[in-house]
Amino acid sequence: MNKIIECVPNFSEGRDIKKIEQIAEVFRSKEGVKLLDYSADKDHNRMVVTAVGEPTAMYHTLIEAIGLAVKLIDLRTHQGQHPRMGAVDVVPFIPIKNVTMEEAIALSKDLARVVWEKFSLPVFLYEKSASAPHRENLAAIRKGEFEGLKEKMQQSEWHPDFGTNAPHESAGAVVIGARMPLVAYNVNLNTNNIEIADAIAKKVRFVGGGLRFCKAIGVELKERNIVQVSMNLTDYTKTAIYRAHEMVRMEARRYGVGVVGAEVIGMIPMQALVDSAVYYLGIEDFSANQILENRLME
Amino acid sequence: MNKIIECVPNFSEGRDIKKIEQIAEVFRSKEGVKLLDYSADKDHNRMVVTAVGEPTAMYHTLIEAIGLAVKLIDLRTHQGQHPRMGAVDVVPFIPIKNVTMEEAIALSKDLARVVWEKFSLPVFLYEKSASAPHRENLAAIRKGEFEGLKEKMQQSEWHPDFGTNAPHESAGAVVIGARMPLVAYNVNLNTNNIEIADAIAKKVRFVGGGLRFCKAIGVELKERNIVQVSMNLTDYTKTAIYRAHEMVRMEARRYGVGVVGAEVIGMIPMQALVDSAVYYLGIEDFSANQILENRLME
Repeated sequence: MNKIIECVPNFSEGRDIKKIEQIAEVFRSKEGVKLLDYSADKDHNRMVVTAVGEPTAMYHTLIEAIGLAVKLIDLRTHQGQHPRMGAVDVVPFIPIKNVTMEEAIALSKDLARVVWEKFSLPVFLYEKSASAPHRENLAAIRKGEFEGLKEKMQQSEWHPDFGTNAPHESAGAVVIGARMPLVAYNVNLNTNNIEIADAIAKKVRFVGGGLRFCKAIGVELKERNIVQVSMNLTDYTKTAIYRAHEMVRMEARRYGVGVVGAEVIGMIPMQALVDSAVYYLGIEDFSANQILENRLME
Repeated sequence: MNKIIECVPNFSEGRDIKKIEQIAEVFRSKEGVKLLDYSADKDHNRMVVTAVGEPTAMYHTLIEAIGLAVKLIDLRTHQGQHPRMGAVDVVPFIPIKNVTMEEAIALSKDLARVVWEKFSLPVFLYEKSASAPHRENLAAIRKGEFEGLKEKMQQSEWHPDFGTNAPHESAGAVVIGARMPLVAYNVNLNTNNIEIADAIAKKVRFVGGGLRFCKAIGVELKERNIVQVSMNLTDYTKTAIYRAHEMVRMEARRYGVGVVGAEVIGMIPMQALVDSAVYYLGIEDFSANQILENRLME
């Protein structure tokens, strides 16, 4: 596999094991696609699939999976804690290797068009594929959920990118787009004062005047009697994890608080860690070609 | 490819392009083996091949390459700056992925037996495959070179591990064994005093009472008017690069000297850099499975 794209589609089914397995099987059985993980949550009534593969193979696999989900999942009888607006709720494409963001955006738009044409399922493009700034954010598009969709789609700023201005009767609508891989990175502090974690979070995050690709909140780790600054780094190539880490440390200093550890939640691209090693060790002129595994994957 | 082993055979031919290409072609044309790099040096009159592959495929490829080199290269007329004792001088096996050191040792011994049986080429086992401590070090085995081999092999401590106590008439003998990947890592200092680099090198290296898997010397970088501590880390899983780095920094402090950068020369396993990122960031409970590329290579 030379070109690799990741896709993390969310399906609104977290309870019916048979349907969950049917959807997973679509990703499992395809040449050029590898199912890395899938998990279903009963409370959320939602299923998250993580797959990687060659872009064209991924595209065809998703058409099949979306078609199946539209057939299997009926939002009119769907209940769950997680907000959702469709049988297939969101389909993010993430460029991983030898795929540019432009290619990922093009793929998401190709899929969007086909999904409307084949399944009469209206599509909103989001993130890097969005057709307007107010449509970049998933939460904004999804606000009102399936139940509010019919009314929302009649407003001119919420017409879909593909499809007529009405939801699919049982499957609602789907959000498709390309985004950078997200790194979930938490920094632990040696205090149990949540106000300190909150105050630091507000300073390091983008909306508070902090780092461009950083979202952050304060979180209590009650069992350990400490707090943490919990961050989502939405572009680790520009907002490196070491920079977010050191900025938390810097802000903590004024409270006399120290950093006592960190966590990576879920998957992380190798380069995000390599960039930090190169920074702390001060390695000069380092090339990704020097990493043995990069040569192995060629 | 599930199991991956690296092999870096050295051949005593660095001048005849036709012969060099013939040898490279053996590695290029094999299913399950990937030729990563090869380079030939006229002064050294030596060729170094870097290949990775599935262990059995690598084994068969090496039999073919060694057979070809024995046919093509005649040490009786060979001259070059680099010490050498055979047409195929040394064949190191390096476990990379899902291969234990024990398996790499077993493979090296299987190859050693076949090389003697097929080509009447005596074999010395070295490094982790060595049959005695005085035979672990390549330089010790190779001392006296091709020209002194006949006499040396008659001494009981230098009988070969496979073969009779006499060299192959034209191809000498070959050294085969398994070793850990070697990381060449240099730390630059903000002084041009080579005595300081030498003094630090002596303290951080194993023979001077320093780190177990560290070899080190002081080196002048005349163009930049600085010096460096140039290290070979012979087991990065036990002597991590960040530990060597911080020990150089610590020793430099007493001279009022600071670290101004570092270099990785050649290839480095991803894990060596990840270990350093995890150390400096203080990431807790980190698993290699969280690295996306590790999942891709499965």
